[in-house]
Amino acid sequence: MIQYLEQDEWRIVEKEFDPARHQASESIFSLGNGLMGQRANFEEQYTGPMLRGSYIAGVYYPDKTRVGWWKNGYPEYFAKVLNSPNWIGVDLLIKGEKLDLYTARTDSFERVLDMRRGVLSRTFTATLPNQCTVQVTTERFLSMHRPETGVVRVTLTPVNFSGPVAFVPYIDGDVKNEDANYDEQFWNILHTEAADYESTLLSQTKKLDFRVAFAMKVAITGNVSSVESSRTDKWCGNTLSLNASEGESLTLTKYVGVCSSLNHLPDQLITNAQNEADRSAQAGFDMLLAEHEQHWTDIWHHSDIKIEGDAAAQQGIRFNIFHLNQTYTGKDERLNIGPKGFTGEKYGGSTYWDTEAYCIPFFLATAPPQVTRNLLLYRYKHLPKAIENAQKLGFTDGAALYPMVTMNGEESHNEWEITFQEIHRNGAIAFAIHNYLRHTDDYQYLDEYGLEVLIAIARFWSQRATYSQVKKQFVILGVTGPNEYENNINNNWYTNKIAVWCLNFALSSIQKVKKRNPGQFEKVIKKTGLDLKVETILWKSIADNMYFPFEKKQNVFLQQEGYMDKEQIMADELSPAIRPINQHWSWDRILRSCFIKQADTLQGIYLFEETFDTETIRRNFNFYEPRTVHESSLSPCVHNILAARIGEVEKAYELYLRTSRLDLDDYNLEVHEGLHITSMAGTWMSIVEGFGGKRVFDDGKLRLAPVIPLRWKSYSFRILFKGVYLEINVNRKEVIIKPKNNRGISLIIYDKKYNLTGGKSLTVPLIMTATL
Amino acid sequence: MIQYLEQDEWRIVEKEFDPARHQASESIFSLGNGLMGQRANFEEQYTGPMLRGSYIAGVYYPDKTRVGWWKNGYPEYFAKVLNSPNWIGVDLLIKGEKLDLYTARTDSFERVLDMRRGVLSRTFTATLPNQCTVQVTTERFLSMHRPETGVVRVTLTPVNFSGPVAFVPYIDGDVKNEDANYDEQFWNILHTEAADYESTLLSQTKKLDFRVAFAMKVAITGNVSSVESSRTDKWCGNTLSLNASEGESLTLTKYVGVCSSLNHLPDQLITNAQNEADRSAQAGFDMLLAEHEQHWTDIWHHSDIKIEGDAAAQQGIRFNIFHLNQTYTGKDERLNIGPKGFTGEKYGGSTYWDTEAYCIPFFLATAPPQVTRNLLLYRYKHLPKAIENAQKLGFTDGAALYPMVTMNGEESHNEWEITFQEIHRNGAIAFAIHNYLRHTDDYQYLDEYGLEVLIAIARFWSQRATYSQVKKQFVILGVTGPNEYENNINNNWYTNKIAVWCLNFALSSIQKVKKRNPGQFEKVIKKTGLDLKVETILWKSIADNMYFPFEKKQNVFLQQEGYMDKEQIMADELSPAIRPINQHWSWDRILRSCFIKQADTLQGIYLFEETFDTETIRRNFNFYEPRTVHESSLSPCVHNILAARIGEVEKAYELYLRTSRLDLDDYNLEVHEGLHITSMAGTWMSIVEGFGGKRVFDDGKLRLAPVIPLRWKSYSFRILFKGVYLEINVNRKEVIIKPKNNRGISLIIYDKKYNLTGGKSLTVPLIMTATL
Repeated sequence: MIQYLEQDEWRIVEKEFDPARHQASESIFSLGNGLMGQRANFEEQYTGPMLRGSYIAGVYYPDKTRVGWWKNGYPEYFAKVLNSPNWIGVDLLIKGEKLDLYTARTDSFERVLDMRRGVLSRTFTATLPNQCTVQVTTERFLSMHRPETGVVRVTLTPVNFSGPVAFVPYIDGDVKNEDANYDEQFWNILHTEAADYESTLLSQTKKLDFRVAFAMKVAITGNVSSVESSRTDKWCGNTLSLNASEGESLTLTKYVGVCSSLNHLPDQLITNAQNEADRSAQAGFDMLLAEHEQHWTDIWHHSDIKIEGDAAAQQGIRFNIFHLNQTYTGKDERLNIGPKGFTGEKYGGSTYWDTEAYCIPFFLATAPPQVTRNLLLYRYKHLPKAIENAQKLGFTDGAALYPMVTMNGEESHNEWEITFQEIHRNGAIAFAIHNYLRHTDDYQYLDEYGLEVLIAIARFWSQRATYSQVKKQFVILGVTGPNEYENNINNNWYTNKIAVWCLNFALSSIQKVKKRNPGQFEKVIKKTGLDLKVETILWKSIADNMYFPFEKKQNVFLQQEGYMDKEQIMADELSPAIRPINQHWSWDRILRSCFIKQADTLQGIYLFEETFDTETIRRNFNFYEPRTVHESSLSPCVHNILAARIGEVEKAYELYLRTSRLDLDDYNLEVHEGLHITSMAGTWMSIVEGFGGKRVFDDGKLRLAPVIPLRWKSYSFRILFKGVYLEINVNRKEVIIKPKNNRGISLIIYDKKYNLTGGKSLTVPLIMTATL
Repeated sequence: MIQYLEQDEWRIVEKEFDPARHQASESIFSLGNGLMGQRANFEEQYTGPMLRGSYIAGVYYPDKTRVGWWKNGYPEYFAKVLNSPNWIGVDLLIKGEKLDLYTARTDSFERVLDMRRGVLSRTFTATLPNQCTVQVTTERFLSMHRPETGVVRVTLTPVNFSGPVAFVPYIDGDVKNEDANYDEQFWNILHTEAADYESTLLSQTKKLDFRVAFAMKVAITGNVSSVESSRTDKWCGNTLSLNASEGESLTLTKYVGVCSSLNHLPDQLITNAQNEADRSAQAGFDMLLAEHEQHWTDIWHHSDIKIEGDAAAQQGIRFNIFHLNQTYTGKDERLNIGPKGFTGEKYGGSTYWDTEAYCIPFFLATAPPQVTRNLLLYRYKHLPKAIENAQKLGFTDGAALYPMVTMNGEESHNEWEITFQEIHRNGAIAFAIHNYLRHTDDYQYLDEYGLEVLIAIARFWSQRATYSQVKKQFVILGVTGPNEYENNINNNWYTNKIAVWCLNFALSSIQKVKKRNPGQFEKVIKKTGLDLKVETILWKSIADNMYFPFEKKQNVFLQQEGYMDKEQIMADELSPAIRPINQHWSWDRILRSCFIKQADTLQGIYLFEETFDTETIRRNFNFYEPRTVHESSLSPCVHNILAARIGEVEKAYELYLRTSRLDLDDYNLEVHEGLHITSMAGTWMSIVEGFGGKRVFDDGKLRLAPVIPLRWKSYSFRILFKGVYLEINVNRKEVIIKPKNNRGISLIIYDKKYNLTGGKSLTVPLIMTATL
């Protein structure tokens, strides 16, 4: 854990420049606007260790799979998010010498990420080896309002000299991915051009021929003595020379239009990018910034969480909400949320089940339904590839296995124990449809899209389950559950549970659509070729006769068969010197141990909580929590929610602390690789579903059951539910529900039903030991 | 399956040259002499598809591991056998044009591997693009008598012209491994020199600095018109020009001395290689060949198997015996037997448990005890590294886990399910000691070396087994058994069985050494720090309380827990179109299926056969055989032996057929990669232990119980046992035992005891349904 950042409610502040922390800061101070993302690389030259990262949403590269020992069924390619041409660059020449914070002496450095406004800025004074001292301010944002526009402003003030300086704004296509499997460069640069105050570059990804045009326009204050435009095959830019006077500021503003072939015809890319840059330059910095800030104001209006009495927690949760909204804006159903968003290369920027399991609960409650609907449509559009993927593994007749990791619907991952065995991901994708429906009542989605997905997933489970002649029940053999510290296990309780749920949900959805929308139903039946007699009878039979491992002595659901044969050592008996175990133990030792990486059985209890009584939840929580090492960032939130559920509020708080500042305080010493974007949604869940006790069960009603940790004076969160927009304030005595619009709603607080009408607030006393 | 070779008792004959089969033939016609090996690459230039392969025993390269997803504990390097400088090369220039069978028209081509003599030869007539027709004969052998000498003879006869020809004998160091993980070249060439009729090259492996010198001397018939010596940084050779006359033969003989730093001081390598070449050249081709042939006569004298009535089987078994003896001669305890020997790059030429499980039974019965002793010493010398290897996986206090794949004692393999989990290999290494002792009575080996290994292995098992509070027995979790179509399973019957046996064998060996050799015993106790009270009590407790899965309904030992939950489909229900399943099914599907890759439970029954009654063996055989797909070449022999054991002679014969001509008829279409050297020992076992019923049980007595397949008129094999050398002839009526020396022996034939004295033969009637 490293704490080098200031605590501030709305801002992330770094007060001193330390090259050793620069890569961490590059991640933490990242910007994004859903369409593109940018690590906090410096605008000016920096020769120290860094990870350059400019990312364009949806633009990826199928990097040839690297593997030691090939197994049948492995994908040929791993889809990777691309480090794209560098469009932020503005080199600064001071009396002919390039400013470079790695070689300059830096004073009064401050880097600030203003989360309320979505702006990254720096100010510093630097003395170059030539003894010239300059004061520099940079500001940068990726417009939320015009997502194809990025803006960079650099202000330079000579402190101890007058003389020639130059600004060199440029676009550089000579970039590579650090994680390239075979050290390839992934881009061809098709075109560069440069003229006075403008430059344009057209890039093309190898293999898939994605094209992205970058066009810049620059404006500058002061008297430019010369403008030199230059280009090479991969680079284009201007050198704007001025004679600077001591104490006088010079400001360059760089407006960059970024257009990709996802959204433009290839032959219009250059023109459209140039037009975008022109329009932005004409609008000017202040107006662009105002539009952008307004967008963020709207976001915070829907999604802010306030915490009183715990500044670190306040900063942490806003940091998480900020990055989630930077990563995905929900406007394009071809996009999704990579585990590291636009903040690093790791995990290839691809889609995991994280989206359905963690991000969708967040977006469902904080953004218009369209956002989640687009995330669901993403998977709907990938259905044909999920069916193909299942075929590769020997499944037939329209069964679908969604990929573990994907960019375009094809599987990217290549560890057999994950790729082929962590099949519970299929369940999360079905559950997300259910979650969407119960939060929105948008059953039209089910009719038109959801049912097809549910049928294909049910078919998968019906083929994947086999009948055990020994048990006289259905079993699911050879899986990896959410706890990846077990591989190739039999009858993982969570997997069996979600499989049965999928089968039942597909069955009930068939009935629902048949009744609601018979015409559309016929279309789906025709398209899927579903045999309503034979197939559904099999599904029901499997759902009704699934084997679930159970530990009788302790009266708990058993994570998988044979788990109790392991040596039962508790996580707190482990020496801190060997934690995390995944950095200290060989893989087989981890597999043989009873230690659980992330919520597994508890993940199932979380999803189907309403079907378990409090004592059952408590017994299972008390059994699994001490065995769980939480070595996935996705683990603590589920434990937090269940701990709060059973009245263990301080345990819940302890678990919350693990997540909210995971990246800010670099708990795992890996933040330089990027932020844990998807687990940020888990942190949000910890507050809203954990402490706030927010639930929507199958009856489609909103439930709240707030508790409050000892440390906090109060907290509040905002949620959208079926068109109603609520602010919930929880202090140490009471819960205040403030509707922010006039639509009425009936909701359940601590098991008691209330009706809110006409925008009136409701106050109920806090009950710390409440159960739902 | 491809049958393009002639059937011949003693020779492998290819009658026509087909470039498409050339790489297969390069493997099949390989030569070796224990110290070096050579694929049947052509001497003269060949520009068609080929796999160049010259290998020097014990010279390897630690190629950086390639892996998709790194797991803690993976080795950094994979040790690979090296394709070393090409020393066989003799280019032929015909009127200035190089002979190249890929571009020439070839007639009356014949390639012969004479297994009786260990000589590879070719004769052919070729017409070059320049219309010159030549007749060529090549002969090659790697001297068994002088293992640092290789000899090549090339005879050239102009058929339709007279004119200038040239022989270009050379040594070429510009070679690479096809399987290099990162396309590196593994050799530096330190020195080349060339003078009239001689050239020398000194090569050095990167990283480990193995050095090998190659020195050639050439002799030629005919009037050499000019000798040109030339060298580059990586190549050296002579161009010997002659004026050839139509119909007149010219013969070049190339004597090559090959000395490696394993056996010579680095600064003496060049001199010693040159001296070796000189001495060989002075001895001359005929004498070298005579010595070499005498060596092979001795080998066949001890190890030949004759089969009457089945020419294909006769050729097959000799081919296997021939290659086994080419690969390992037992003179150097630093060497071992790679699964492909010196015939290809696959499997890195490294040591697997194949050596102990398959090759040692062969060498124990066909070669002097020293050969097996050296194979045991190889592992003894690797003991410190096996202890280190176990430490990396978290084991302590002198526990040893031998590597799955190794060259120098360090683990090379990097699939967690094999590297970390296929731990039964430790058992094979202990069992080999037992096997050696009961065949030789060389208990001095146990005192001085074996006991240390057994203690370290017992320590491993005692730490690897854990106590199940549920079963109230010891369990071994998370393993891969011999059947690699299951990973990370619990309580593999074979692994548990061999673990218990190891613990008990270590305990009894401690008592034995303590009694036999108290002084040495004290030394071992001191060196190992064995706590005779605490440790041995734990070992006994584990051995006495191990859990073994059992299938009650069918009354069979169960391969692993949960096996009966699988769908029980028999292998013959599978469509031939999806066989072998490892080429058609994804890995998870294979894992979930009940299909067994190679003998697993049956491997345990084979090893400890004397502890099971015939009915138990039969029940288990009948249960497992139909579920076994034999997709390892090491599988059928064990099934064959047990089938013969329970009187299923024709089933045994069917299984025998799968192995004896596996490479000759290229059953798996992969012989171009190299031969299955270690499974060749399994073929030998099929005859001697399967049909011949040869056994040595714990009482140390030789047993025989021959049966004969319907197809065979008779067969005979030769075995050494405790200094007695026997030939066993089996015909359709009787078994004739002929001692080949005068030492007496008492042995058991079909359960009846006989004493052979004074070299007298014994004849007993054949009993086809006998049990041991």
